[in-house]
Amino acid sequence: MERQASELFEEFKELTASEFFRRNKQMLGFSGKIRSLTMVFHELITNSFDAAEEAGILPEIKIDLKRLDKDHYILRHRDNGPGIPEDFITKVFCTMFAGSKFRNIQSRGQQGLGCSGCVLLSQMTTGKPARVTSGYKVNGEIKGVQMTFKMDVKKNQGLILDKKEIPLDSTGVCIELHFKDVSYSLSEQGAYEYIRRTMIANPHAKITFRDPTGHVYIFDRASEEIPPLPKEVLPHPRGVTADDLIFMAKHTDKRRFRSMLTSNLSRMSTKRVNEIEEITGIDLNKRPKDMKWEEAEQIVETFRKMDFMAPPTSGLIPIGQEQVEKGMIEILDPEFVAATTRKPVTYRGGVAFVIESGISYGGESGRLIGDQKKAEIMRFANRVPLTFDQGSCAITEGLKSIDWKRYGIRDLDNAPITVFVNIVSTNVPYLSTGKQSVAPEPEILHEVRQATMKVARKLQKYLRAKKAEKEEAMRSQIFETYVPIILKEAAALAETDVPEYEHVLAKVTRKPKILEELDDE
Amino acid sequence: MERQASELFEEFKELTASEFFRRNKQMLGFSGKIRSLTMVFHELITNSFDAAEEAGILPEIKIDLKRLDKDHYILRHRDNGPGIPEDFITKVFCTMFAGSKFRNIQSRGQQGLGCSGCVLLSQMTTGKPARVTSGYKVNGEIKGVQMTFKMDVKKNQGLILDKKEIPLDSTGVCIELHFKDVSYSLSEQGAYEYIRRTMIANPHAKITFRDPTGHVYIFDRASEEIPPLPKEVLPHPRGVTADDLIFMAKHTDKRRFRSMLTSNLSRMSTKRVNEIEEITGIDLNKRPKDMKWEEAEQIVETFRKMDFMAPPTSGLIPIGQEQVEKGMIEILDPEFVAATTRKPVTYRGGVAFVIESGISYGGESGRLIGDQKKAEIMRFANRVPLTFDQGSCAITEGLKSIDWKRYGIRDLDNAPITVFVNIVSTNVPYLSTGKQSVAPEPEILHEVRQATMKVARKLQKYLRAKKAEKEEAMRSQIFETYVPIILKEAAALAETDVPEYEHVLAKVTRKPKILEELDDE
Repeated sequence: MERQASELFEEFKELTASEFFRRNKQMLGFSGKIRSLTMVFHELITNSFDAAEEAGILPEIKIDLKRLDKDHYILRHRDNGPGIPEDFITKVFCTMFAGSKFRNIQSRGQQGLGCSGCVLLSQMTTGKPARVTSGYKVNGEIKGVQMTFKMDVKKNQGLILDKKEIPLDSTGVCIELHFKDVSYSLSEQGAYEYIRRTMIANPHAKITFRDPTGHVYIFDRASEEIPPLPKEVLPHPRGVTADDLIFMAKHTDKRRFRSMLTSNLSRMSTKRVNEIEEITGIDLNKRPKDMKWEEAEQIVETFRKMDFMAPPTSGLIPIGQEQVEKGMIEILDPEFVAATTRKPVTYRGGVAFVIESGISYGGESGRLIGDQKKAEIMRFANRVPLTFDQGSCAITEGLKSIDWKRYGIRDLDNAPITVFVNIVSTNVPYLSTGKQSVAPEPEILHEVRQATMKVARKLQKYLRAKKAEKEEAMRSQIFETYVPIILKEAAALAETDVPEYEHVLAKVTRKPKILEELDDE
Repeated sequence: MERQASELFEEFKELTASEFFRRNKQMLGFSGKIRSLTMVFHELITNSFDAAEEAGILPEIKIDLKRLDKDHYILRHRDNGPGIPEDFITKVFCTMFAGSKFRNIQSRGQQGLGCSGCVLLSQMTTGKPARVTSGYKVNGEIKGVQMTFKMDVKKNQGLILDKKEIPLDSTGVCIELHFKDVSYSLSEQGAYEYIRRTMIANPHAKITFRDPTGHVYIFDRASEEIPPLPKEVLPHPRGVTADDLIFMAKHTDKRRFRSMLTSNLSRMSTKRVNEIEEITGIDLNKRPKDMKWEEAEQIVETFRKMDFMAPPTSGLIPIGQEQVEKGMIEILDPEFVAATTRKPVTYRGGVAFVIESGISYGGESGRLIGDQKKAEIMRFANRVPLTFDQGSCAITEGLKSIDWKRYGIRDLDNAPITVFVNIVSTNVPYLSTGKQSVAPEPEILHEVRQATMKVARKLQKYLRAKKAEKEEAMRSQIFETYVPIILKEAAALAETDVPEYEHVLAKVTRKPKILEELDDE
């Protein structure tokens, strides 16, 4: 029984982004009870940090997680950021693909999905509205507003239930959400560990967290230094595609293609534009909209052949070697720590990134499984912990490809170490919507290896020195045990007194302290 | 220097789904040259199969992949399906989140992203428009239309460049797309292997593929049986959430909540509704829109406590044991094959699924790496090969957790076997937008294990019998070699003739053929 096309297309329809993700919430990272709650923490913390730093404020967050019932929680998340103006509140929290971060700038979030995803999950599991309080400055005065709203998924927008002005004496956003079907856990993928790792990579932030048992954890600042604000950087010529040029041309307000090039790309001077004109023979005085695809392709190909200065790195703000070490010391209290920050390089020809790596040994380093210490790999992207999809991530792949035996680590999995890797970029190539793993671009793999191997060499030196010290100690021990006996027995045989031997023995066993004491006598 | 909220929100904007995925094409599975091309094959084949089967047609696809230049290809993909009516062509190929498959029905695609994703990738890498020819029946007559179009990403819709009616004598869609920055490969993750696996799970389909060297592969049908059309099934009460009930209530045309329940859920009779009314004390004669969240929750909780018949399985069409074996024999030519199809069960309480598993041994089974045969795991969801993200998939996890030694396989990775697993469901819980791995729901893991262990037991029997046969053969060999010598020497010693011994020897070595021959003499 054959059916006609018209019949099959009767059911054709379009979904909004919210409807789509309501049917596919796992694509926002909401799968599994523990993971879902961790993702909520991730989205809210990330947004608070970005907003505070962008406004020039040292971030401070207070989180209160109450358990009302098995699997039923109320989360209150309050930050000290610049706040959200009234008109934007439901857009931020109820409209998917809406946001202020769609620029070429290094930021933790970029997709306009995070906050609205949390509200969607809350609504899907409890039917409860979200309650938001926002304090924000208007001409220097603080305005306060409180509203409760739901998400209208068929329209991909908010539905305000209640709204009132309230007096507030500081800026910031406080959101209160109910969740069911989620679970708070102390495991490696749980919300607590997420906060702990966040603090390693953000030693300038402060988080106060009250867990469901009522215990209050205060993660204080290890540094008062607010990270410099990343600047928006223009795309590098080596990083653009023909499609990007055509897209730019379609939406630019410049009247000539040449001025569009110089004002939309970095490292692009009039001199370079003239060179391009000469090489390609294309008249760059034409109107942007008249640019043909083939011409755009020719220009991009010419970009590939020309030497440009590397992309400006003012857009990239790594944590920095010293701060990584501070963070690791504060949280892991190790006996050895070393970190390094590589110089910026590019992947796919023109997207700049920086890899930072740190290794700590001893103390709270590693993960305790049973009574065995295992290695712990902490992955970060723009200071955000990546908790899931470890297997398919460029960072894991890079680390696993290192020949750890060369650095005195016989078996990476079973070493009592923590390896920290952070990728900093305006454009981290995530593998999935959940933003939990980095695509294995060859340049990224290379940098992860180089950075980590450099730090591993320091660890090797430390481990060697530790081993040598131990052997030295054993050697001394032998001398110290047997020399006195031999001397005493020899003296007894020779029927003389035991000679003064401590000074000589201390010299052989290299104990400067004993030597000093002896010299002082 | 603190900045105010108003300043930060100046840049706030909304993206369309197309703009979003243009910035995040890796979320559609387009990352890496080989993977990108495989994803294109996947999306187009999947859509052609679904359309043909839904229309009641045995699917036949002709694919022609031409290489114009390094990394520059033209793909022509033609099917014999019901075609697409003119008005829907650009919606199918240029509007994201639009489709006809947003129902509770088992189909390969479900997300309204696939075809438009291919057009987006083509446009992003070559700037070339897509060309589509569609033949479709209107009142029994075939109408033909050809158009070229681009995607307007800012509007998430198509932009028709050219359109004309053309005479056609059969229905179906032919699409021609240019791609750059992709790569055809014979590797496990390449387009060729994708087609090969597709044919194992779809023995009723025919694909003719001309590769870039001009070689034509014809994968013919192993079966003329068109799979029964899966029926749309109403959601099972155990599978709905309070949010689903509220969502239904908001959009139903029923005037009473009780009639909404009986007409929107499976296994829900008036008798059951009365029981629910009694248990909860909620008046179910109320209007759907008057249903409160708490009431919906109470009803869902009551669902959980009631006994319902399992979900109707008319919606699930597994490939079937015999067809899986046919597919594996056709493509792998093994010395042993066995398959099984489990009974439908549910995950998350009410989503029905079926697991099918098959194992083949010998012949073309396994993957040749160097000159070593390794085990090959072929994962499928609703007959679609899953090629990427193997590590995080429930199927892989289930298989790895089996104690293969118990079945005579010392080391799964290095066994010359192919393991086939297919999950059939109206609602496969994918882990990512790329639809390449299945979420590890406990019930799915359980079924993958049970199905595979059942087939593994058969393999074990086969391997044991093979071993026993080999030992038997060795034993016979010894008798056949030494008995004649001993007899001859004994005869010589006794100075008599050698007696007739073949008949007795054949009986001992159990060679019926020789026995027959001897008896015939």
